[in-house]
Formats: sequence, structure tokens, C-alpha cells
Amino acid sequence: MPLTNRRWLLTSRPEGRLTRANFTWDESPVPDLQDGQVLVRTLQLSLDPTNRGWTNATATYLPPIPLGDVMRGIGLGIVEASRHPGFREGQLVQGMTGWQAYHVSDGRGLSAFDAVPGLPMDAYLGLLGHIGATAYFGLLDVGQPKAGETLVVTGAAGAVGSLVGQIGKIVGCRVVGVAGGAEKCRWITEDLGFDAAIDYKREPVAPRLRVLCKPGIDVAFENVGGDILDAVLANINLRARVVLCGLIAQYNEAVPPPGPRFLGNLLVKRARMEGFIITDYAARFPEAMAKLAEWAMAGRLKYRVDVVEGLEHAPEALNKLFDGTNTGKLIVSV
Amino acid sequence: MPLTNRRWLLTSRPEGRLTRANFTWDESPVPDLQDGQVLVRTLQLSLDPTNRGWTNATATYLPPIPLGDVMRGIGLGIVEASRHPGFREGQLVQGMTGWQAYHVSDGRGLSAFDAVPGLPMDAYLGLLGHIGATAYFGLLDVGQPKAGETLVVTGAAGAVGSLVGQIGKIVGCRVVGVAGGAEKCRWITEDLGFDAAIDYKREPVAPRLRVLCKPGIDVAFENVGGDILDAVLANINLRARVVLCGLIAQYNEAVPPPGPRFLGNLLVKRARMEGFIITDYAARFPEAMAKLAEWAMAGRLKYRVDVVEGLEHAPEALNKLFDGTNTGKLIVSV
Repeated sequence: MPLTNRRWLLTSRPEGRLTRANFTWDESPVPDLQDGQVLVRTLQLSLDPTNRGWTNATATYLPPIPLGDVMRGIGLGIVEASRHPGFREGQLVQGMTGWQAYHVSDGRGLSAFDAVPGLPMDAYLGLLGHIGATAYFGLLDVGQPKAGETLVVTGAAGAVGSLVGQIGKIVGCRVVGVAGGAEKCRWITEDLGFDAAIDYKREPVAPRLRVLCKPGIDVAFENVGGDILDAVLANINLRARVVLCGLIAQYNEAVPPPGPRFLGNLLVKRARMEGFIITDYAARFPEAMAKLAEWAMAGRLKYRVDVVEGLEHAPEALNKLFDGTNTGKLIVSV
Repeated sequence: MPLTNRRWLLTSRPEGRLTRANFTWDESPVPDLQDGQVLVRTLQLSLDPTNRGWTNATATYLPPIPLGDVMRGIGLGIVEASRHPGFREGQLVQGMTGWQAYHVSDGRGLSAFDAVPGLPMDAYLGLLGHIGATAYFGLLDVGQPKAGETLVVTGAAGAVGSLVGQIGKIVGCRVVGVAGGAEKCRWITEDLGFDAAIDYKREPVAPRLRVLCKPGIDVAFENVGGDILDAVLANINLRARVVLCGLIAQYNEAVPPPGPRFLGNLLVKRARMEGFIITDYAARFPEAMAKLAEWAMAGRLKYRVDVVEGLEHAPEALNKLFDGTNTGKLIVSV
């Protein structure tokens, strides 16, 4: 009896936030495996801010998703059957599974690995996958933090931001997080060890940064953009490094909003703002995974997952990232 | 008989463009030299966009000029008398002479040198001083251009920009300049060897950059900011470097205008935007001077000066930089 796939097809381009109406739910038989193919059952789907950009008609660092195709997404899966030499039944895989229950693939965009005994299943997407690698390389490689420097993390209670702040503490920085809401601020300071938190929903960010970051911000890990990036730029120190990881404040805008007014501070402060895309670091992922696992085992790195049950809720769930109602890594349990 | 000094005192803060009303003309005796002092007669004054920022009440990379003080400025002078061991009569000096005919100094901010035989007097401020160093280190050290890459220079017919483009050609780049007006565009392409020019007063910059810079801009040397920086960011290549040398478009604004909309391209293109201040390179000036002189002697580096006669015209002359009516290095002959 053939398996039935359940999947979300992207069938129209969102304007502003995406809605269920941009997708079509499809149930259809899983095709038979051909030589060189692998059948993966999706266990968990990672929802990331960058997913929103992928749905636009214009290319980002990836081409647009063609209308009618399965929605692109990163997931954790298990090999159900394999006629591909790189995959064997029972192995775990991470990669571009898409928003679907089953994925028949020629292996491109997927990497297989064996489960680490004792590691909870949510650690793969929450800590050891692209999220952990983004925090690790973005902070250490692009940001070049030094012990004693002041690090500011925006989107600090998010999946990446919460790891960035903890890695910053491990390398000896003073760490200030910007997050939305008292509970997020409590979590990052009391549970994760950030030195201070700014609740952007209740406090003006720029003056609080001025007080908390003297004589200025040495490294900023920027997930947000908009006014919060401006508040950061207004408070950078000499030779600061501003790591652009994400600009979530503008992903739903058809026309990009104007950029930061305090750009001139890059000049006056001889500072650098630099973007990065984590896929460029694919060859160095094992280095990050080893370190992240070591720190997690030693209790120096904590993560939190926010699990939404059911693939059918994926479209609405993605908007949690944009209204700030998730804490930690947003995952759909398929 | 005591010498009479002629000087411009900054006596009020400009709002928008500075005017003669922000200054007070003063004639007073030059004080007697004390031990450890040097008397310099100003020959030429360099007018630079950054001068405008110095007149504000807020610090840039230098503290504000106190009201009532002589207007700060870089100049070329000659030692008239010296009771300072580091200076001797007849030597040339460059440095912070201020907007005045005579300068009695303890030597700070001034460097003495012997005239190079055969070199015209305007070469010092036009090519071999802070202007040449800015072009040299900003392009080569911050921008890191490689042969075969595409370099875009904004403010390309200005003192710094015109040198940057020529140095870009020397290191093997394809060079596109953005300048205002047909004559400036003719000058940089026909006389200076830029590969192409865009007249921002007559052509939309972003689409022209798209056509002229395929597959994108590898290095941008940014003197302007505003819409022109946005047009640059919209057309950067993977791993582009955007050198922030100046943001002349906003120096007269009390509140900095919003920044570029296409900041997200730094992320998507894994690009870097970095500011620098030339004074940080003071220790390496001899390296730049040697190279610039060598290239100039070999006819590979041309410069143009725009000389305004008379210290009394300095306030109005500075605005030529902001209305774009100068070509090449703007100098006041004192």
C-alpha cells in the first residue's frame, strides 16, 4: 500500500505576513523510490525568519520557491528506505526536507548522521544544526569577540540569539541582550547568564544601551534591524563589529524600509558591519557541532524549544517569529 | 614691528550650510615666540567636507571646536621662525594650521618636511598629504581590491575620489565613477582613465550601475551617502566591501537622515561596510607618500586643484564641496 504524503504547497506570494491562503494543503501518494534516491520521513520542521524571504518572487541568497512547489524548509527526518549509497535506513538526516511528511530525494541538501545517545531529539534542530552553527560562526568568525569586550545581542531570546549570548559569556564578554517582554528578559539573565537585558517593549533601547554598555558596544549580533539596529549603531565603540545575521523587522515589507540614521557612526568609530549566510560555513559545521555539544554536555549552553504540534499548523506558526510570541527555537512536530 | 594675524574665528554653530555669519574676522598681533614654539605662515588651506562636521556642537572623531576659537583646518605653511627643536626656518609644514595667516604652535598637529625639488606647491595638499593618504589606505587597506574586480567610486571627481579611481586602475580594477555633471564625467574617463562614469544629475544611478557593473560591485568607495549609497548597495556582488570614507550628503543635516534601504543586501551578499578615519594611519603615511609620488612622477596619477584666492573667502568656499561646484582638491590660497 503506497504511503500518503501530506504537504504544504506554496501557491501564491504573500504580501506582508504570510497566511494559510498562500498555501495549498495537498495529500498525494509518495512516489516509488528509484535508484539513487532516499525516502525520508520528516520528524520535525524548523521554522526560521529567513523562510519568509524565500516565499518572495525575488531571489535572496536562494532562488525564489516556484509557485506550486512544496514550501522550502529545513527539517529533521529519519531514513525510511534508501536506494542511495550515502544514506541507510534508520539514520537521521537534517536538511531541506520541505514542509511535508515524506521527502523523496536524490540526497542533495540533506546530510545523514547517527543519533547521539542520550541527546534529546529536539537538540538537533534546537542546538546542533543550522541554528547552532549560525550562532557559533556568526559570533566567533564574523564578530571576532575578545574577552572583556561588550557584546549586544538583539532578538536575544530567539533560537540563535540565546545561543550567541551564552557563547559570548563562554569567551569572556560582558553580554547585554535586547528582547521583548519581561519573561524573555528574565530567562536570558537568570537562566542563561546574560549580564543584562533590555525589554524593548517597555524601555527605550538607545538610552538603556548607553547606560549598560560603557564605553560602547564592541560587538553587536543583529537579528532585528529597524529602530533597534539604529539604537545599536548610536552606541558603538571604536572599531566595533556589527554582525548582520537577520533583519526580521523588515522581512514582511514589500519595499525595504529606510535604513539606520546612525550609519555615520560606522565612519566616526572606524567600525565594520558585515553580513553572513550560514550555508557558506557548511564545510566547517563539524567544528561547531563538536564545540556546541561539548558546551551543552558541560551545562554551559542551554536551549529552549517552542514546539507546535502538527504540520497543518505550520503557516500560522511561522508568524510567531514575527509577532515575538516564541521563545527559543520554533519547531513543528510533524 | 609685530606681525598682524588675519584669522576666522568660529563664533556660532551653523544650522544646515555654514555661512559667513557663523564666523568673525579677526585681525590681531601675532604673539612673540616663546621657547618651544614655532611660527608658521600659512600658504594654503585645505577645505574638506569633514570641516563641516567639526563646527557642530557634538563630537565626531575630534572634539567640537570651542566657540570663539580659530576655525580648525588643515594647511600647508612655511616656518618663519622657530624656537622649537623639531622645526627650522624655511621648512614646509603640513597639519592643523587653522583658518589663519599665522600660527604660533608648540608643534602638536604639525609635521615639517623639506620641499621636494620640482614638485609644484599644490601637490602637497592635492596629492601627497591627507588627501592622498585617504585614497591610498582607504582603497587598498580597507577596500582590499583585487585585479579584475569592479570598483565604484562616488564623489569621483573630488579630491579623494579622483585619486581612488586612478589607484584602482593601477591595481587592475575595472573602475566606474559617479560624479555630477558632464565635464566631471569627461575628466575622470578621458583624462584619468576611469572605465565609465555615471552623471548622477542626469542619469538614475542604480540602473546604470546595474548595466555597468556586471555581475556586481566588488569594492565601493563611498564619499557621498544618501540615495547614491543605496544605489551602490542595491548592486553589490558577493563578498563586496563598501568603504565608508565620507557621507557628504548628510553633513549639513541636524538630524541624520534615514540610512540606505538596501542594507539587507549586506546580509544576502555576505558583504562588509566599514568606516575609517585617516588619522589612524598617521604612522604609515611615509609608505603612501612614497608610492603616490612614484606614481605621479610616472604620469600614472593626476590631480587637479581648485584654488580660491584669499583667506577672506574661506567660509563661502567650503560650500563648493556641498553644492558640487569644485573639481579636484579645493584649496584656499592664503
